[in-house]
Amino acid sequence: MALIVKKFGGTSVADLERIRNVADKIINTYQQGDDVVVILSAMAGVTDSLISLARQITEMPQKRELDALMATGEQTTAALLAITLQSMGYQAQSLLGFQAEVHTDHAFGNARIVDIGANRIKNLLKDRCIVVVAGFQGCDAEGNITTLGRGGSDTSAVAIAAAIGADACEIYTDVDGVYTADPNICKDARKISKISYDEMLEMSSLGAKVLQIRSVEFAKKYNVPVHVRSSFSEEEGTMVINEDTGMERLVVSGVTYKKDEARITVKKVPDQPGVAAKIFGPIADAGINVDMIIQNTRQGGQTDLTFTVPRTDLKQALEIEKKVAEQIGAEDVLGDDTIAKVSITGVGMRNHSGVAAKVFSTLAKENINILLISTSEIRISCVVSEKYAELAVRTLHSAFNLGNANQTT
Amino acid sequence: MALIVKKFGGTSVADLERIRNVADKIINTYQQGDDVVVILSAMAGVTDSLISLARQITEMPQKRELDALMATGEQTTAALLAITLQSMGYQAQSLLGFQAEVHTDHAFGNARIVDIGANRIKNLLKDRCIVVVAGFQGCDAEGNITTLGRGGSDTSAVAIAAAIGADACEIYTDVDGVYTADPNICKDARKISKISYDEMLEMSSLGAKVLQIRSVEFAKKYNVPVHVRSSFSEEEGTMVINEDTGMERLVVSGVTYKKDEARITVKKVPDQPGVAAKIFGPIADAGINVDMIIQNTRQGGQTDLTFTVPRTDLKQALEIEKKVAEQIGAEDVLGDDTIAKVSITGVGMRNHSGVAAKVFSTLAKENINILLISTSEIRISCVVSEKYAELAVRTLHSAFNLGNANQTT
Repeated sequence: MALIVKKFGGTSVADLERIRNVADKIINTYQQGDDVVVILSAMAGVTDSLISLARQITEMPQKRELDALMATGEQTTAALLAITLQSMGYQAQSLLGFQAEVHTDHAFGNARIVDIGANRIKNLLKDRCIVVVAGFQGCDAEGNITTLGRGGSDTSAVAIAAAIGADACEIYTDVDGVYTADPNICKDARKISKISYDEMLEMSSLGAKVLQIRSVEFAKKYNVPVHVRSSFSEEEGTMVINEDTGMERLVVSGVTYKKDEARITVKKVPDQPGVAAKIFGPIADAGINVDMIIQNTRQGGQTDLTFTVPRTDLKQALEIEKKVAEQIGAEDVLGDDTIAKVSITGVGMRNHSGVAAKVFSTLAKENINILLISTSEIRISCVVSEKYAELAVRTLHSAFNLGNANQTT
Repeated sequence: MALIVKKFGGTSVADLERIRNVADKIINTYQQGDDVVVILSAMAGVTDSLISLARQITEMPQKRELDALMATGEQTTAALLAITLQSMGYQAQSLLGFQAEVHTDHAFGNARIVDIGANRIKNLLKDRCIVVVAGFQGCDAEGNITTLGRGGSDTSAVAIAAAIGADACEIYTDVDGVYTADPNICKDARKISKISYDEMLEMSSLGAKVLQIRSVEFAKKYNVPVHVRSSFSEEEGTMVINEDTGMERLVVSGVTYKKDEARITVKKVPDQPGVAAKIFGPIADAGINVDMIIQNTRQGGQTDLTFTVPRTDLKQALEIEKKVAEQIGAEDVLGDDTIAKVSITGVGMRNHSGVAAKVFSTLAKENINILLISTSEIRISCVVSEKYAELAVRTLHSAFNLGNANQTT
């Protein structure tokens, strides 16, 4: 008898028939004697429709109201699933974020979970009730509805799993696991059976869209085993687990890419103390996230400073930096939104030298020019021209032999 | 400087353009220096769509879940109106039932308001914020979402107006006031400028669909002046007020009719003590509301007992009564769903004799057979064959000269 959290994404609850399928999966587990808590997303497309409705009123709807609006999506699916389970003869109850005591900070639109008072869930479980929680939403200390950002239902699921001490958190989605690369690009991409929290963290932030990054942080922090699997098959997916729990130690686990960033270069910046703060302060004040930052030393006490921002923020960031450039006496500011970031990730890199060199030589062989490089202990990222992104992914996937489970460097 | 509650029904907020019109009306009042609290219904048709979605799953969805589902409708319009007001440069905030502290009992689907903790609304008003409250919804002591039944937003509005001590409660709807009769039936029906709470109570329960009856009860209890008016014009509507506040004293205020009842007759009931309890107990247990009850004494220690129930409950009520009839030794049970109840209402009846006689003779002149009669101090209701309903309304409206404001009996 285990306590299982199951999370279903928007495509899994897109209509009543699919909600019925979800109910079947839940009952399957429940009938084995397990207790089940279900976390749901809104029906596929609903959140986007609600946002676009609000945007018809104004380009920048106030985030508090947008959250109250968006939260209706998960409220709807949670109630519909509870009704479905009840109609099949099972005890079920839906809970909204505030009812499930998902307490967050005040950051509307992108709130962080502060704590979860799981008493109500636990009490319902004691009565063998199937608990259906509306994902993506919480409430702040004043009782305002907040949402957790894109993909926030994953975080709801893992955080609730942690709060109630669940034995496993199953994330049902429209893909059947985490792949060594996007199977749409790499024909021989392979499903990874086990991956560590750290690798999944890197891959999530690098473009693997399977799990929201915060959910992986939660899973790592509270050591919640996460099982990413398909809503539409019974096949095992990918286990996201602690690195120490007997994983195969591969040098590289996967290749990812992102096309949602843009590059800004501030040319001939006077190389003085405090100049970086002047460049990045106003960007931070505008709420724009900077990803990579590269500084080259140049002759004559001047340097070029290059960094990347979300592509949607490029225009605003360029305007800010042009003002900054004037103030600090830099020569020019250039923007480029035709870039892609290609990354390889793997905990095995810690103990292997030569991985970076192999990445560079592999890309060079295909005449792919590397514009920016950044690395971590378990990751190497290269920014290349957008048009080379798919080629770069395929080439690296093949160079590191990722299509074969028994890869070697 | 007054404190005004404005309630807008589903047709008034049916799309973004109409929501914008609602915003204009609100701002109009706000700019005169008044504080404004707005109560909204769901967009026209949305509540019905949600119910039919749930009914696609099961004929009898659990009411707790149905309430959580339906509550999304008002949550949506409240957020959209707040966003609209903000986009026009005004401070606004939406509040859901639980946030506005609309505390109800546990009767999901038809909950009664127990009390309203208006602190949050009052605090927002202090900052000159326009407060937009999702109507129709509240929460019970456990924090479950409840709804107040069909037309419940009217009750939300009046109850909130009472709780915050509003100077007036304006109910904007798709008709421009309360009429002496349904204008679709009576061409010379006249808009009533002032009507007492008691008359409005009777008329609401007798088929005038303008206000939910509970909202009138609240208005009467807390002496809240209610102004029923059109969303689509600036014209004055109907004031529902205390009888003593200088109203024109008409004998008859209006003629109403209802076609949603059915008649059940239990034939030859043994006329013994306790037999009525045996007949009506099981009906009450099944949650079926009985409206009129008529008992005729007959010869031989037997009586016919006739009563009316909602037409939608006729089948179930007949099944129950057939079993009861066997137990108590009654001869037969007959059902008739082709009836209509036609009523005249007016506080002036208290001081006028001959009103009932005039009703009966008026109907007799048109050869309309009266099946059942029931009366109160300020009302006379006759059940007639459904096919005569419109004719009966027109005849009575004309007999009491209601098309003319200076009517005489």
